[in-house]
Amino acid sequence: MSGLEERLRALEDRACILDLIAGYGPLADSGNGAGIGALWAEGGSYSFEMAGETTTLRGAEIGGLVELESHRELMAAGCAHFLSAPSVRIDGDTATAVNHSVVLVHRDGIWVAERVSANHWTLTRTDDGWRVANRTNALLTGDESARDLLAR
Amino acid sequence: MSGLEERLRALEDRACILDLIAGYGPLADSGNGAGIGALWAEGGSYSFEMAGETTTLRGAEIGGLVELESHRELMAAGCAHFLSAPSVRIDGDTATAVNHSVVLVHRDGIWVAERVSANHWTLTRTDDGWRVANRTNALLTGDESARDLLAR
Amino acid sequence: MSGLEERLRALEDRACILDLIAGYGPLADSGNGAGIGALWAEGGSYSFEMAGETTTLRGAEIGGLVELESHRELMAAGCAHFLSAPSVRIDGDTATAVNHSVVLVHRDGIWVAERVSANHWTLTRTDDGWRVANRTNALLTGDESARDLLAR
Repeated sequence: MSGLEERLRALEDRACILDLIAGYGPLADSGNGAGIGALWAEGGSYSFEMAGETTTLRGAEIGGLVELESHRELMAAGCAHFLSAPSVRIDGDTATAVNHSVVLVHRDGIWVAERVSANHWTLTRTDDGWRVANRTNALLTGDESARDLLAR
Repeated sequence: MSGLEERLRALEDRACILDLIAGYGPLADSGNGAGIGALWAEGGSYSFEMAGETTTLRGAEIGGLVELESHRELMAAGCAHFLSAPSVRIDGDTATAVNHSVVLVHRDGIWVAERVSANHWTLTRTDDGWRVANRTNALLTGDESARDLLAR
Repeated sequence: MSGLEERLRALEDRACILDLIAGYGPLADSGNGAGIGALWAEGGSYSFEMAGETTTLRGAEIGGLVELESHRELMAAGCAHFLSAPSVRIDGDTATAVNHSVVLVHRDGIWVAERVSANHWTLTRTDDGWRVANRTNALLTGDESARDLLAR
């Protein structure tokens, strides 16, 4: 029996992680900072490129990204934070995932891909289920460092 | 035992819903109206924006969308109805899902994102498995009403 | 008991296939030819359109696609091979999947969808798990043959 339970739990872990990551885009585009914050584990971090620099938000700062001037401008224009289904590796109470994200922005009647990024996620099992420990996002502009995020 | 069976069924429900939604794009782009119709439950509905107005199709009308002049033009040009993996909440015999969709259209040698939408899905368990009860789709052009679809 | 085990295995099969396909884009964009090759079963094939012709790679050639001049140019410019979550049908030891893929390329500060394709995958259960037996990819430029890939 324990074999079945273990296999079932592995599938539940995977389903939970996929749904967690699938939740990011809808939360970002509806401006739900509290919802974004709740995706992360306590003490978690989110690093991304903005204006040529790497910004790292931690803890309660992460949900605050929806208040950034740059994010507000995207929402006002009309935007989609569109993520691809990640490839996931689970190892006990931690997991890693890699995927792509595209930010599509409404400009002059069509939508333009203004950001296309590689994402590397580290996830952790908490008492409340799986949460993001770290997300690192880098623009795919030809730099090896961004490509390396997808190489795990 | 019932605990395991219940957990297994929850995973099967989720897999079925994800596959149902993943089927929409390929059916739309291959012009399979009957296949699209079969995704919906009897009496289901699909609301979307077109030419500045909200159109709601019901029942057999839904599969008929592939016969619309606008849809035929997209297929002739070359198009992809590209949906993101949804975030899904299941509650007994009903479920909700939110995701993005992009319609990419072949124009002058590249593909242009001519529609980028928020989608809110309500699903229902039928005797034949999970089906769509309602899908509401709204263009992400900065309107709060479209963003609110992603807020569930 | 066997009923539960069989249902569990069906879910494991599906999870494995979805993860296999989700792995393609990150491997392609990080230039990991060996990793791409490992997605395919021995003797497998990958057919795609390039410069108006259909190219079919087999076996060890498949991982070699990252060495193609066209692929190197995409990686240098900055690119994302962005795949949609597939719809999957499993029948014993074989499966089929259909989805979309988009190649987004960094050009003049934004990303352009230079390839948008229909994909039909045949998968096979091997001693090492599920692997791709065949992937056929065709550009969605209005041709019926590309649309037909999505019709299974």
